[in-house]
Amino acid sequence: MRKIHVIGIGAGDPEQLTLQAVRALRSTDVFFLLDKGEVKSDLTRLRKDMLDAHIPGDSYRVVEARDPERDRGAGGAAYSPAVGDWRSARADIYERLIAQELGEDDTGAFLVWGDPALYDSTLGILEEVQGRGRVAFTYHVIPGISSVSALVARHRTGLNRVARPVQITTGRRLAEGFPEGVDDVVVMLDAHQTFRQYADHDIDIYWGAYIGTPDEILASGPIAEAAPRIERLRAEARERKGWIMDTYLLRRNPGER
Amino acid sequence: MRKIHVIGIGAGDPEQLTLQAVRALRSTDVFFLLDKGEVKSDLTRLRKDMLDAHIPGDSYRVVEARDPERDRGAGGAAYSPAVGDWRSARADIYERLIAQELGEDDTGAFLVWGDPALYDSTLGILEEVQGRGRVAFTYHVIPGISSVSALVARHRTGLNRVARPVQITTGRRLAEGFPEGVDDVVVMLDAHQTFRQYADHDIDIYWGAYIGTPDEILASGPIAEAAPRIERLRAEARERKGWIMDTYLLRRNPGER
Ligand SMILES: C[S@@+](CC[C@H](N)C(=O)[O-])C[C@H]1O[C@@H](n2cnc3c(N)ncnc32)[C@H](O)[C@@H]1O
Ligand SMILES: C[S@@+](CC[C@H](N)C(=O)[O-])C[C@H]1O[C@@H](n2cnc3c(N)ncnc32)[C@H](O)[C@@H]1O
Repeated sequence: MRKIHVIGIGAGDPEQLTLQAVRALRSTDVFFLLDKGEVKSDLTRLRKDMLDAHIPGDSYRVVEARDPERDRGAGGAAYSPAVGDWRSARADIYERLIAQELGEDDTGAFLVWGDPALYDSTLGILEEVQGRGRVAFTYHVIPGISSVSALVARHRTGLNRVARPVQITTGRRLAEGFPEGVDDVVVMLDAHQTFRQYADHDIDIYWGAYIGTPDEILASGPIAEAAPRIERLRAEARERKGWIMDTYLLRRNPGER
Repeated sequence: MRKIHVIGIGAGDPEQLTLQAVRALRSTDVFFLLDKGEVKSDLTRLRKDMLDAHIPGDSYRVVEARDPERDRGAGGAAYSPAVGDWRSARADIYERLIAQELGEDDTGAFLVWGDPALYDSTLGILEEVQGRGRVAFTYHVIPGISSVSALVARHRTGLNRVARPVQITTGRRLAEGFPEGVDDVVVMLDAHQTFRQYADHDIDIYWGAYIGTPDEILASGPIAEAAPRIERLRAEARERKGWIMDTYLLRRNPGER
């Protein structure tokens, strides 16, 4: 039966691969690399470098495919349906890749940035493809160091404070208000620097971009002081590289609520 | 100057060490292993096996120390002060270990289960020791695969649902009510199987104990059906081994609120 590894490859630092991930890379016949378009081709390059670095010889094939663009145009309300369509378009592609590119006894792999458990659609898509029942395969998941773990490690701080909760959310959600019942909030997928909305609160921010890569940038401090600094760093970096990936932890003083 | 690695070693599977963690293990002169008493000595054993497996020769020393027990007797209200006292008692121990056991140019390491960012006091203690200014050292953090990542990988599911938040919290907090504003909640440090409190809700549970170790147990399903099953598995396992470490994800049907 066809076998598939979903491999978390860490947030950018190839040294953050686990031994289990390296072993899975080495047992893979076909890697599926899905490219979201030109701007992210740096990321495709990084993944290929990882394969070169960790797999001796050339016992494997790489199959590249184009990931359909998500329709972001319609704004907030249309978000979920657009995700649904997009997911099923991707399921079609994944199904075809597995059926056509993997032999009956082959092992394929999808390489996922960070941890496949966080804001990544690969597992949902594979579940959908398997549910359709047109191509038989097994799959398993190799957890990776998420950008969240990498962020706080670089800042030498924890995610939660003693005996307190932490929430991981998106920029879009944060724009609707500071989450209820938590003072420690990690924000991902924020294209709009939503932290600025909280610049007059008693909050510390721990921010990082391109974490784990040679381009890594870190900044932290009380948000009033740090927000303009981060805004500047972020704009410069984005200008220079053409794209940015950043994440941050907001740590609110509990007295503030 | 003395140097310290805080190394996340994953939740139990030695294959979940990262390449960076292995490199750090190999550059360490002195490992500090803090033992919480007899019941956890399995865990000390596991850490020593990791050193044996990954460090060729015997270029290192292991210093074991007894971690002061936290005062859990006084219950909820006294929790935070007790944590404070306990932390400063531990800071005394860490300070002494660093000052007395590490030479000026030596590298020491603390091995932390999972990811040092989640419900672990090592970083807070080192910050406190450094703040006291009596022994000079630098430290840095190597992120690890948390039990949270390991849990959901084994269940082949994500932490968050599309564009939605996830909260990580404690059994104690969950006992006070289902967290506001989230439907996906990971619970750690739950000695009381607090999930039972939600057995009549429209919730799926993904549970795991001793994840990543040969004793690993997994169970999942609609909570009404799965809760009694988990209760049984947990009681048997705890009886057999004398201790248990378990974590779970509660995934609530959004219609339920
Ligand atoms: C689609 S999500 C994937 C997250 C990934 N699965 C993980 O575990 O980190 C992409 C978001 O992750 C964050 N991210 C991923 N890699 C990052 C990096 N190297 N530095 C900073 N943020 C990163 C950013 O918030 C970005 O918007
Ligand atoms: C003091 S916290 C440390 C968490 C750790 N830093 C991490 O990242 O997983 C201990 C809690 O972690 C969870 N845990 C740690 N290792 C586990 C394992 N192998 N299986 C299940 N739960 C685990 C349990 O909820 C336990 O009560």
